[in-house]
Amino acid sequence: MRGWALGTSGNFSAVVSREPLVLTITATGLDKGSLSPEHFLRIDASGRVVEGLGRPSAETALHLLLANVRRAGAVLHTHSVWSTIVSEFYANAHGFWIEGYEMLKGLEGVKSHIHREWLPIIENDQDMARLAGVVESELVRCPNAHGFLLRGHGLYTWGESPEQAKRHLEILEFLLEVVGRTRTLSGSTGR
Amino acid sequence: MRGWALGTSGNFSAVVSREPLVLTITATGLDKGSLSPEHFLRIDASGRVVEGLGRPSAETALHLLLANVRRAGAVLHTHSVWSTIVSEFYANAHGFWIEGYEMLKGLEGVKSHIHREWLPIIENDQDMARLAGVVESELVRCPNAHGFLLRGHGLYTWGESPEQAKRHLEILEFLLEVVGRTRTLSGSTGR
Amino acid sequence: MRGWALGTSGNFSAVVSREPLVLTITATGLDKGSLSPEHFLRIDASGRVVEGLGRPSAETALHLLLANVRRAGAVLHTHSVWSTIVSEFYANAHGFWIEGYEMLKGLEGVKSHIHREWLPIIENDQDMARLAGVVESELVRCPNAHGFLLRGHGLYTWGESPEQAKRHLEILEFLLEVVGRTRTLSGSTGR
Amino acid sequence: MRGWALGTSGNFSAVVSREPLVLTITATGLDKGSLSPEHFLRIDASGRVVEGLGRPSAETALHLLLANVRRAGAVLHTHSVWSTIVSEFYANAHGFWIEGYEMLKGLEGVKSHIHREWLPIIENDQDMARLAGVVESELVRCPNAHGFLLRGHGLYTWGESPEQAKRHLEILEFLLEVVGRTRTLSGSTGR
Repeated sequence: MRGWALGTSGNFSAVVSREPLVLTITATGLDKGSLSPEHFLRIDASGRVVEGLGRPSAETALHLLLANVRRAGAVLHTHSVWSTIVSEFYANAHGFWIEGYEMLKGLEGVKSHIHREWLPIIENDQDMARLAGVVESELVRCPNAHGFLLRGHGLYTWGESPEQAKRHLEILEFLLEVVGRTRTLSGSTGR
Repeated sequence: MRGWALGTSGNFSAVVSREPLVLTITATGLDKGSLSPEHFLRIDASGRVVEGLGRPSAETALHLLLANVRRAGAVLHTHSVWSTIVSEFYANAHGFWIEGYEMLKGLEGVKSHIHREWLPIIENDQDMARLAGVVESELVRCPNAHGFLLRGHGLYTWGESPEQAKRHLEILEFLLEVVGRTRTLSGSTGR
Repeated sequence: MRGWALGTSGNFSAVVSREPLVLTITATGLDKGSLSPEHFLRIDASGRVVEGLGRPSAETALHLLLANVRRAGAVLHTHSVWSTIVSEFYANAHGFWIEGYEMLKGLEGVKSHIHREWLPIIENDQDMARLAGVVESELVRCPNAHGFLLRGHGLYTWGESPEQAKRHLEILEFLLEVVGRTRTLSGSTGR
Repeated sequence: MRGWALGTSGNFSAVVSREPLVLTITATGLDKGSLSPEHFLRIDASGRVVEGLGRPSAETALHLLLANVRRAGAVLHTHSVWSTIVSEFYANAHGFWIEGYEMLKGLEGVKSHIHREWLPIIENDQDMARLAGVVESELVRCPNAHGFLLRGHGLYTWGESPEQAKRHLEILEFLLEVVGRTRTLSGSTGR
């Protein structure tokens, strides 16, 4: 997927049913370069595997959280070079504004390039329960965010459907590359 | 198309007939990663759909304008990382000169690398009628331009035929990347 | 292989048997863009060809060393743009620390992004016996390293299996690109 | 070819016979993204078409020159982003040294990374006869060069065979990218 999920990194999920909540989610430790059905497990609202072999992604708690708190129908988590770099660069500010770009209109509910999108950066943590708590607080504080970065780690985004989640992923990765590369320019606009 | 039209962005059109004017143009909101015939609609000179299902691209007015004012047989509009970055970097100057590059000879009518090409940057606007008016004035002011940038948005280019439009697109995107990356170099030529 | 082994550069090996030690290794001077079985030779612990036609890679001594000293089941050596650039940039420090990145967890034995990975940089040398001696000392000094750079030359990494070696390669190349591109950013985090 | 010959740019030739000299060379104005036999013409030592339809590349004189003066069996000319950028950056110095890179060993006759390769930069010129004269002088002044840059235009390289020319192209484009990107790094090696 465009170099955004190398070396077993990244994970994906989709809601299969709401009542009761069942998610299909990528199993941990697999090469995501060539995903096929056996890479996916079904889990319930508590994260227990109800179908398929293997362990679910270590980050299952975040997928369940987004399915619940954001009513996401699909969640995508990728590790790209630019999301990693930008998440470190703006770490002290705990996020950054993206504004003025036409591409923002690809995010659900955004009608104009004049939109200001805050992309929160959350400190990475190997304690998933604790991290899920921090993420939940951040989602409450930023009800309009379409994604967030885990510092030094990668991007989470989501959508009502897998198609919308994929669109959000492409938009945000594009904008992260634009934001990052803009910091590599120097000099004034005079030539 | 080389990462220049991610996430439903970008749109393409071609003149089907001149009298009366009929354009084939991409429908809005579709993933341009895999274009097939059903992605295209036919519209008349007023932008009304005369064949096909769906809504035409929101930027139809600009395509019609180029078909009329520039006598374009095909129009291509893409959102690349470098066109976005460069359009912001030179926004205050309302454009920039590209000169000295052999690749310029790929633009229709250009015979030498000594050519100076002005690439106008136009402020982005969600009001399409107003934007079309501004673009029209700019096209009149710059009769030799082979394309223009919408700020924070992307590139428009065109040609007599789809092949010429594609060539102009490849040339201009190449030059935008060269211009942008040149701004990332530092230091003198001494080593 | 993702542009990491252009122009006959790069070489790969895997342990076929331990007692006696037999390695399969790429022959020298071949285009690695399209590897097939006839590109590989079998060599013994002294580097002598025991099966196949052609000369083994000039860097055979380093592959044997890693099979012995690190008990590697597979060794990968690539020449990427970013490994080359970074190996020159940090040459005077004889290496650099990589820390804080989630992607580090893809390296065998690493459990947290808080891990600090030292990537040694070793001066390049055309005298393979002498270079192997220097590399061996460095491997002893850095028992936890998952790879090393030869200055101006490229990356060596390895694993118990070809799959693990491939994972280490993808992780380290990703991190080299992150480290290198981070040096291209300028300014503070304020916007 | 890896984005090095977009928009009808770039041209390629190979010697078919020496006595009399016959070259097969790409016709002008074609999209090099999908080369097939009908893209090639045969020309004699004076540049006259002896087989095939269409006009030979405008830069035929340089191909003939290299076939004669360097005894090249194949010549490749590409327009890459990095060759264009670097050719402008070092234009005032009329070239630059590339040294210390293992990848240099891919150039014919180079045995060690300690090799210093001078890559001449020649001012671009639409007058092909005059340009050929300047290139010939430069080739005499730099008998060991494996290629040269035309300023703002692109790279010429060659080899005894098409395979060797392709290897030289990949090596030189790799090194041009390394040299260019190295200029984008800032700061000291301390972290």
